[in-house]
Amino acid sequence: MSELRKDPIVGRWVIISIERGKRPTDFISPSQKKKGGFCPFCPGNEHTAPPEIMAFRPAQTKPNLPGWTLRVVPNKFPALQIHGDLTKTGEGIFDRVNGIGAHEVVIETADHNLSLSTMPIKAVEDVLWAYYLRLNDLKKDKRFRYGLIFKNEGEDAGASLEHTHSQLIALPIVPKLVREEIDASEQYFHFKERCIFCDVINQELEDGKRVIYENKNYLALAPFAPRAPFETWILPKKHESAFCPPDKDFAMLADILQRILKQIDRILDVPPYNFIVHTSPFSDETNDYYHWHIELMPKLTKIAGFEWGSGFYINPTPPEEAAKFMREAKI
Amino acid sequence: MSELRKDPIVGRWVIISIERGKRPTDFISPSQKKKGGFCPFCPGNEHTAPPEIMAFRPAQTKPNLPGWTLRVVPNKFPALQIHGDLTKTGEGIFDRVNGIGAHEVVIETADHNLSLSTMPIKAVEDVLWAYYLRLNDLKKDKRFRYGLIFKNEGEDAGASLEHTHSQLIALPIVPKLVREEIDASEQYFHFKERCIFCDVINQELEDGKRVIYENKNYLALAPFAPRAPFETWILPKKHESAFCPPDKDFAMLADILQRILKQIDRILDVPPYNFIVHTSPFSDETNDYYHWHIELMPKLTKIAGFEWGSGFYINPTPPEEAAKFMREAKI
Repeated sequence: MSELRKDPIVGRWVIISIERGKRPTDFISPSQKKKGGFCPFCPGNEHTAPPEIMAFRPAQTKPNLPGWTLRVVPNKFPALQIHGDLTKTGEGIFDRVNGIGAHEVVIETADHNLSLSTMPIKAVEDVLWAYYLRLNDLKKDKRFRYGLIFKNEGEDAGASLEHTHSQLIALPIVPKLVREEIDASEQYFHFKERCIFCDVINQELEDGKRVIYENKNYLALAPFAPRAPFETWILPKKHESAFCPPDKDFAMLADILQRILKQIDRILDVPPYNFIVHTSPFSDETNDYYHWHIELMPKLTKIAGFEWGSGFYINPTPPEEAAKFMREAKI
Repeated sequence: MSELRKDPIVGRWVIISIERGKRPTDFISPSQKKKGGFCPFCPGNEHTAPPEIMAFRPAQTKPNLPGWTLRVVPNKFPALQIHGDLTKTGEGIFDRVNGIGAHEVVIETADHNLSLSTMPIKAVEDVLWAYYLRLNDLKKDKRFRYGLIFKNEGEDAGASLEHTHSQLIALPIVPKLVREEIDASEQYFHFKERCIFCDVINQELEDGKRVIYENKNYLALAPFAPRAPFETWILPKKHESAFCPPDKDFAMLADILQRILKQIDRILDVPPYNFIVHTSPFSDETNDYYHWHIELMPKLTKIAGFEWGSGFYINPTPPEEAAKFMREAKI
C-alpha cells in the first residue's frame, strides 16, 4: 500500500506510491506514448479499466459497455487506495499516514480525437457536471478532507494517455498549498472583512489590462504574479467558496473554459497544459473568505534549480502582454 | 527591467523577466540544444560572454582570455539586474519590487567534455571554492538578502548550454521556500533547543536504512519524504548554519558530492538533475537552528496537475530502496 509521508522541516507531504514502485532501470528508457496504438479509454475497451463509478449513457445501454458519452472509472494505477482505515504512525521525528484516498479518472468523451477545446460545448458542460457529482459523492466519505480535480493535457504536462481525461483525487489531509491559500484568505478576511479574491476581481475589472474574457458569471484573467507564461485563472464573479455553479448551471463555466482553451490552442499551437480546480475543503465548504477558481497553465517552461530552491518562478512573458495576446486571438 | 511580483494570496514571488520577453510564437518551436555546435563557455570564446567576475587562472594569463581552469561571469540573459536601487511599489493590492539582483554563471571547467562527476576531484573542490568566494563577495552588497546557488544539468533539468556550469542568484528578498525552512527550524529550536536537521541526522545515522554514504564531515541520505525518486541530501554532520566548510577545507565536500553524482550517473545512466545549496540568509548566517545542506534531484518524473494543485509530490520509489541502490552502485 502507498503511504503519505511528511517532511519534518517544511511540512510538505509526499505520496510514496509503492504499487508503482520503480527500479532505477525503469527510468532509463522512459516509455513513449504510442500514437494511434491501443486506447483503454475508447469504446469497446471498457473491460481494460476497472468497473465504472458513473457514466452518462442512454438508459437502454449497460454499464461497462459502449454507448456512453462520459465515464468515470477508478484509476488503474492509483496513487492512493480506496479501501481501509486511516492509520497515522510515527517513526521517531517522522510522520506517516497510510495511503487511503480515491483516485478517479473522468473520460471526458468517447471520441478519441476530441479535446476539451474541440468537443461540443454541451460535452464540456457534462465534464463539469461529472466533477460536481463525483465531488459531492466523495465528500460523504468521512475519511476524506479534500477533493482535488485536475487535468494533465499532453505528455509534457504529465498525461500518460492521449484520450482526453481529467482526474480526481480525494485526500485524507488538506494539501499544503490549499491550506496556505485558505489560511491567507482567512487572515485577509479577518483584517478587511472582505474576500481577497473578490478584491482582486474588482481591481482587475476596473483596470482591465489583465482581463482576458468575461461572461455573465465568470471572469478569466492573467494573474498579477503568474508562475508561467499565459497562466490563466477563471473565477466566479460573485463570491462563492466551493466549486458549485450559481443555480447549478454549468453553461457559463463551460463557455469561458472552452473559450480560454481555444485561445490557448490558437496562439500556442495546441500546447500541453495543466488545470486545477481550487476549492474549499469538504469540512468548510461555505465560508466568506475563500473563493473557488480554476488555475490553468500551459506547459511552456521548465522547473529548474532556481524554482526548486526558492519557490520563486521566472516568467518571461508579462501577464499584461499574455492577456492582450489572448484577447486578440481569433478563435 | 525585470520585476519581482508577489501573489497577493499565497505570497509567492515571481520574476517577470521582461528582457527575456517572449511572444507566443517563441514557445511554439522550442530551440533544440545543438550538440557539438558553438559553445560560448569554451576557451577561445571568452569574448562572447560578459567580462569575467573572477577566474582561477595562472598568474601569467590575462582576464577574458584562455588559460583559466574555472571562470565566473555574469549571466548574459540575467533574470535580475545588478545596477540600480531597490524600489518597492504597490498597485492597489499588488506588490512589486524592481528586479535588482545578481545572476552569475560558474563555468566549472575549461573542458567541454567533463562534468562534475567526471572532472578531477581537485576541480570539484575549485567549484565549491568559487561558490564560497562569490557568496562572500555578494553578501557585502546590502541590497541583497539571500544568495542561491544551483545547478541545472541536462536540457530536461533546464540547462540551456551543455558545457557544465552552475548558477548563483543574489536576491533582494529571502525566497518563500527558504523562509519556510528557516521559520520551521527556528520554531523547532524554540521548542526543543535542538536543530531539527541535527535530530534528523542522528536518527538517520542510527537507523541506517536511508543513509547512502558518509565521510569524516558529511552525510548523504535519501530524505524520509523525497519529492522525487533518488532525491539525495548532503549535510555537514556537525551543526553549521551557512555554506562554509569546517576549517575552510572543501576536500570532504567535494568527495561526497562527486561520489553521489557518480552513483547517480551509474544507476540512472547519466540523468539530468538539479541541485541546490540551501543556506542561511546573509543577515543571519550564524545561528543554532538552521543547518545548511545540498538537495539534489535527478529529473525523472514530471510535475503535473496534482503537484501544481496540492504541493504534494507523488514518488514511485521509496527512499529506503533508492538508498540501497545508491549504496550498492559500483563506481
